[in-house]
Amino acid sequence: MAIRIFITGGTFDKEYNELNGQLYFKDTHMHDLLELGRCRVSVEIRTLMMIDSLEMTEEDRNLIVHQCNSCEEDKIIITHGTDTMSETARVLARHVKNKTIVLTGAMIPIKFGSSDGLFNLGSALAFAQTLVPGVYVAMNGRYFNWDNVRKNRETGIFEEIK
Amino acid sequence: MAIRIFITGGTFDKEYNELNGQLYFKDTHMHDLLELGRCRVSVEIRTLMMIDSLEMTEEDRNLIVHQCNSCEEDKIIITHGTDTMSETARVLARHVKNKTIVLTGAMIPIKFGSSDGLFNLGSALAFAQTLVPGVYVAMNGRYFNWDNVRKNRETGIFEEIK
Amino acid sequence: MAIRIFITGGTFDKEYNELNGQLYFKDTHMHDLLELGRCRVSVEIRTLMMIDSLEMTEEDRNLIVHQCNSCEEDKIIITHGTDTMSETARVLARHVKNKTIVLTGAMIPIKFGSSDGLFNLGSALAFAQTLVPGVYVAMNGRYFNWDNVRKNRETGIFEEIK
Amino acid sequence: MAIRIFITGGTFDKEYNELNGQLYFKDTHMHDLLELGRCRVSVEIRTLMMIDSLEMTEEDRNLIVHQCNSCEEDKIIITHGTDTMSETARVLARHVKNKTIVLTGAMIPIKFGSSDGLFNLGSALAFAQTLVPGVYVAMNGRYFNWDNVRKNRETGIFEEIK
Repeated sequence: MAIRIFITGGTFDKEYNELNGQLYFKDTHMHDLLELGRCRVSVEIRTLMMIDSLEMTEEDRNLIVHQCNSCEEDKIIITHGTDTMSETARVLARHVKNKTIVLTGAMIPIKFGSSDGLFNLGSALAFAQTLVPGVYVAMNGRYFNWDNVRKNRETGIFEEIK
Repeated sequence: MAIRIFITGGTFDKEYNELNGQLYFKDTHMHDLLELGRCRVSVEIRTLMMIDSLEMTEEDRNLIVHQCNSCEEDKIIITHGTDTMSETARVLARHVKNKTIVLTGAMIPIKFGSSDGLFNLGSALAFAQTLVPGVYVAMNGRYFNWDNVRKNRETGIFEEIK
Repeated sequence: MAIRIFITGGTFDKEYNELNGQLYFKDTHMHDLLELGRCRVSVEIRTLMMIDSLEMTEEDRNLIVHQCNSCEEDKIIITHGTDTMSETARVLARHVKNKTIVLTGAMIPIKFGSSDGLFNLGSALAFAQTLVPGVYVAMNGRYFNWDNVRKNRETGIFEEIK
Repeated sequence: MAIRIFITGGTFDKEYNELNGQLYFKDTHMHDLLELGRCRVSVEIRTLMMIDSLEMTEEDRNLIVHQCNSCEEDKIIITHGTDTMSETARVLARHVKNKTIVLTGAMIPIKFGSSDGLFNLGSALAFAQTLVPGVYVAMNGRYFNWDNVRKNRETGIFEEIK
């Protein structure tokens, strides 16, 4: 069965608006990245929202939970802003069972030079295919269980809490 | 324990010589890619050779086998040209036991635009961390067992034999 | 004699801070670009300031005027934010005589994919070598006299006033 | 009046064939580069051939001469392999009068990382707009008269003969 990919925004999909110098969201770059990676994993992509994760509300997270529960796939990747990725992971762990859910994102927008997005997507797809059901964060080449991960705000690196 | 990364060359590490228009090998780009991916997995990198995989000899493969057996790590990634990647996988499966070995590479050199190398490396690192001992090929976002993989020469895509 | 290159900042040299998602200035990318272009024109580079051109004050412009007048080179390129590039051009035209001054910049930061900076630098260097003394803006592959140029804020394109 | 751009191939437009690892020609990347540079110079683009300049014959050069003479534009840019660029320049100088012709190219293919092509195109467009009628080579940020230029094969740099 295909892997479900839900897009929620975050740095991963941000673009530079050359008219006002602001970062903004247009479309997801997921399809371009999968093509770049010559990916042959069967995927179903759906954009749920296009927001900065600092602006993600309880209602937004409920929507993500609902989509994870109602989709037929049991392997799910969610692209997400890094700032509240671990928070959304906790909400998902409470409300979605028997599915392998992998949250990932990027520190640098895909469209900029030197993005980590393609690397993270490659690892997230692999983790989604191999990890037992549960909710995980895939960043920095590693995977973390939902209840043992935080983003270190000073270094930008994900690490275990304990 | 760290993941061992062995470099053997292949398209992954090829560069363009602007003086004669030929592709050639200089140094591996592995360190750059790991930095780009903000990778925090502990790795030990060693270059075993820098060759086109069509030129890989039995002696070369014996060297790779020896290195896999003698290194202390039990999770190993090998970058390798795609043309004979599945052949080397078979040799490794015969001679190396109880280690998770993941071969990966690229269809387009890292240094060129539009390379799949960063994506493949991300997935290979994830597969190396999660798959049970055995020999695998990680390409196109997927993993293949050593005894059920071939590169389709017409499409450039890896696929099951059976 | 060498061409003098003065750096003042602008989008050209902006970078993305992955810890807070803001754009900021670190060092100029001028040296990297000249190397990328395999440039063999003799140049002298000096950073005068690293600011957004919307924040450029009269004092800043006086400093640029002073530097243009006091340097020994009579061909000068100034990298500059696009928003007030034509304003600085007017100030320079009033106060600097007998020198060929070419202002240029970028709509997209050099460090991001799809930047116009390398193209603009190539044209600015060529215009500086060939145009008679005067003050010019070089953008969009064209050159404009200081008294007949504005940036169209809606399209981001430079155009004649008349 | 528009600037005429003739495409003849060369490293500038080479691509990497990921199925056989060879470099080859498909379409020109001229349109992409002009878009990247946000170029607003009026241009007319025509592909005359797509060949390595080491394979360019007298017949090929006659065709280029004919096209330069018969097109209505009097400012012409020709993209060309670097190895015989100065040779074609000499042929053009003998047979085309009263037009500004600028030959340019690239040491690294546009499609690879670290290409000088965008920089060279920016300078060629500027030189075509500003130089008096004649035949020139534009490389390394400089322009050379047709009768005083050669490519140094050891350094890859264009230089004066005298």
